[in-house]
Amino acid sequence: MRPVEILTEEQLEAIEGQALRLLEEVGTRVTHTRARELLASQGQVVDGELVRWDRGFVLEQVAKAPATFALRGRNPRRTIELGDGSFVCAPTGGAPFCSDLGRGRRGGTLETHTELVKLAHAAGLPCLQSGTVEAGDLPERSRHLEMDYSVLRFSDRPYVAYGTSERKARDGIELAAIACGGREEIASTPAIMGVANPNSPLVWDEAMAGALLAWAEAGQPVIVTPFLLAGLTAPVSLAAGLSLQVAEALSGIALAQAVRPGAPCLFGSFFASVDMRSGGPAPGAPESVLATLAGGQLARRYGLPYRGGGGLCAANSLDAQAAAETTMMLWATVLSGSDFVLHAAGWLEGGLTASYEKLALDAELLRMLERVRGGIAVGPEELAWETISAEGPGASFLASDHTLAHFREWLFESPLFRAEARETWERRGAAGADSAAAARWRELLERYEDPGIEPAVDEELRETVERRAREC
Amino acid sequence: MRPVEILTEEQLEAIEGQALRLLEEVGTRVTHTRARELLASQGQVVDGELVRWDRGFVLEQVAKAPATFALRGRNPRRTIELGDGSFVCAPTGGAPFCSDLGRGRRGGTLETHTELVKLAHAAGLPCLQSGTVEAGDLPERSRHLEMDYSVLRFSDRPYVAYGTSERKARDGIELAAIACGGREEIASTPAIMGVANPNSPLVWDEAMAGALLAWAEAGQPVIVTPFLLAGLTAPVSLAAGLSLQVAEALSGIALAQAVRPGAPCLFGSFFASVDMRSGGPAPGAPESVLATLAGGQLARRYGLPYRGGGGLCAANSLDAQAAAETTMMLWATVLSGSDFVLHAAGWLEGGLTASYEKLALDAELLRMLERVRGGIAVGPEELAWETISAEGPGASFLASDHTLAHFREWLFESPLFRAEARETWERRGAAGADSAAAARWRELLERYEDPGIEPAVDEELRETVERRAREC
Repeated sequence: MRPVEILTEEQLEAIEGQALRLLEEVGTRVTHTRARELLASQGQVVDGELVRWDRGFVLEQVAKAPATFALRGRNPRRTIELGDGSFVCAPTGGAPFCSDLGRGRRGGTLETHTELVKLAHAAGLPCLQSGTVEAGDLPERSRHLEMDYSVLRFSDRPYVAYGTSERKARDGIELAAIACGGREEIASTPAIMGVANPNSPLVWDEAMAGALLAWAEAGQPVIVTPFLLAGLTAPVSLAAGLSLQVAEALSGIALAQAVRPGAPCLFGSFFASVDMRSGGPAPGAPESVLATLAGGQLARRYGLPYRGGGGLCAANSLDAQAAAETTMMLWATVLSGSDFVLHAAGWLEGGLTASYEKLALDAELLRMLERVRGGIAVGPEELAWETISAEGPGASFLASDHTLAHFREWLFESPLFRAEARETWERRGAAGADSAAAARWRELLERYEDPGIEPAVDEELRETVERRAREC
Repeated sequence: MRPVEILTEEQLEAIEGQALRLLEEVGTRVTHTRARELLASQGQVVDGELVRWDRGFVLEQVAKAPATFALRGRNPRRTIELGDGSFVCAPTGGAPFCSDLGRGRRGGTLETHTELVKLAHAAGLPCLQSGTVEAGDLPERSRHLEMDYSVLRFSDRPYVAYGTSERKARDGIELAAIACGGREEIASTPAIMGVANPNSPLVWDEAMAGALLAWAEAGQPVIVTPFLLAGLTAPVSLAAGLSLQVAEALSGIALAQAVRPGAPCLFGSFFASVDMRSGGPAPGAPESVLATLAGGQLARRYGLPYRGGGGLCAANSLDAQAAAETTMMLWATVLSGSDFVLHAAGWLEGGLTASYEKLALDAELLRMLERVRGGIAVGPEELAWETISAEGPGASFLASDHTLAHFREWLFESPLFRAEARETWERRGAAGADSAAAARWRELLERYEDPGIEPAVDEELRETVERRAREC
């Protein structure tokens, strides 16, 4: 399926035009000293904390970022390619809470973080994430080390490292380097990605600009994602939000290129309207769907890999609202040509909760969309001329050889969703999809296989985690 | 959004090639005598009940059907245009049961049929349907009259008439003619549509061929919809199913053209895989999504308006499965370029139940998709240059004039889906989307306004309903 083009060329130009004018005339506030100095040294106008960007400079810098790149896992066979519509999915991240039907909703801990790492690994997500749930039982200053370690130890796949400050980003790079063959090795084939969110509108603060610089310097891809809430950090119109999106994403990417030309960067999109009845963000509403589609088009305009969409919802439980919003968003994600999908599985309560059941449900939705993305095979065996013509009008194909030969492989069978007669369903307890999802995540977790780790590597990782925790 | 093209030209040719070969070499069984005679008189090879169709004849006949047409309501201002991606939605139909949270699941009655007519009318669905739920409290032979009357009396919109036999189809035409200005008037601008399902694979039975002929003769559009279940009435491959789909739909449309050249016909698609664990159909699984997309492409190939997709699901309650399957299908419906959408709202339990809550939920999903289909406005007011540049970096737009001026119109606000803090949500009883949907359909029903009917017309309708019921 080709990506949807929702904006006309004229509309794209208008949005880009305003974005570049914002950068030139209004500028961004940059509170990170070294970032300002770097930009000044490359000819940008710095006035106190305000940086005014030259549009030619910005576009030139952005053009240095590669359209595709490889991200290696601790296990090199887990390497993934990003770009060209790669649709690589990673679990939800950044939730202070986690929940499952049996144990209820509770604050995240390192133990639940590890459990969610194992669950995402077992569910087959090709990319993991540190901080799927916050390890709230550990000190804020040092918990990033244990969360990154938890991913490195219990999965062998590439991941999004924790990194809400320059110091934490640097720690994450150090750990990844230990596990993946050293700094030079990961500079040539990166092993982690980092998410840098400007403080919308138009602010690059100390923590995020610092983390962005750290990752870019080390050659680790930066996902530059403005966090736009229409009615709060952006006006209530998509066009205005998209102009901020372009201004903020391109300025962040230009900054990354200023410190390391050619550093991989993703054009990230996160856009939600605010529900004015409650003041809460509503990811999953039509505004997010439209912004996800538009974001993909803008990323392609700049030849950048796109991080957009995800399994987002505002719902507080795994009900019809959660599934409707999530499915809306996942379709937008597919249709936007998204290369990397953060929060693809497990997101609940506007992202405040990492839900075990939601992770299982979303993994199933992704599997359905993967089947749809696979299209339709039209070969002789699929056309089944012999079967249809031999059976003739009025036939049943239930017991035909063709059916018996192929149904297991060709018919999509969901462990979660069943087509059961109501009587059967009632006899089995009239369970909703939430119970089916609960059974499913338990099954996935049981199937989890420890990828193992070399003792020497593990020892060095532990030594580093503990040393840095003491130093923090 | 342009329709998705999921099949290549080569694949389309292979599917069409097999379909036409099936019609020529295998043929269809046609148990309706007059239909066989008509086809024989137009040069088709009739051998007992078997009709072998000439591919040139079929394509020539199909080309006579119009690409677009108007369907008038009892109130001419309710007239709708079908074709060119019109996306006209109608409620679910054919369910023996209905359900709502308060009264539970129960057999349909004329009273609940009328209630669902009012609900679909109040929800703003532009086209209605007779038989949304079966009036199981009335005799099978004559209940179609009361169901059609119930639509005609309590809505003034165009509708899909009941019609599972020639006799019932003729009764429906008679009632529509009374309400809409007479037979000549509805022959020039049709007032009802009929659904003709061949008995897949490749059988046109007495009842359905008869109904098809009756509607076509009267100039009322026929929605020719093969009912394909992969693993039962079709092989387990999409390609095989699609070849049956084309063979059956085109043969039905050719038959309609044989009795009245130029009669409006829709290329209908209904395709579901069978869940081999239970033997139940699974509309909403990836097979249905893919077939819906492919069906749209095939309809466009023949220049025919397309009836495809709908708010289909296999789920037995309004849970995450129901919403996920339905949202998957509604996206496929939009992306297929569907002109007419049957079962767009209210479908539950694989179509066995017309659910009041599901109708409210689906109407909301349709409203969301309508907003998405509307795209993004990029004018000066939407770009909001003054607002963004005046507020500057770090601003909040919550109280800005631009927000206050536009949020009501521009931000999508759902009566069903809310973005509420978990604490608020819990304080309000932690209600799921099913309760919100229950409140919503009650609200819609309260808002229902009787469109009224001219007493003379009503009298004639009642007289006809009662006379024909006696004659049945």
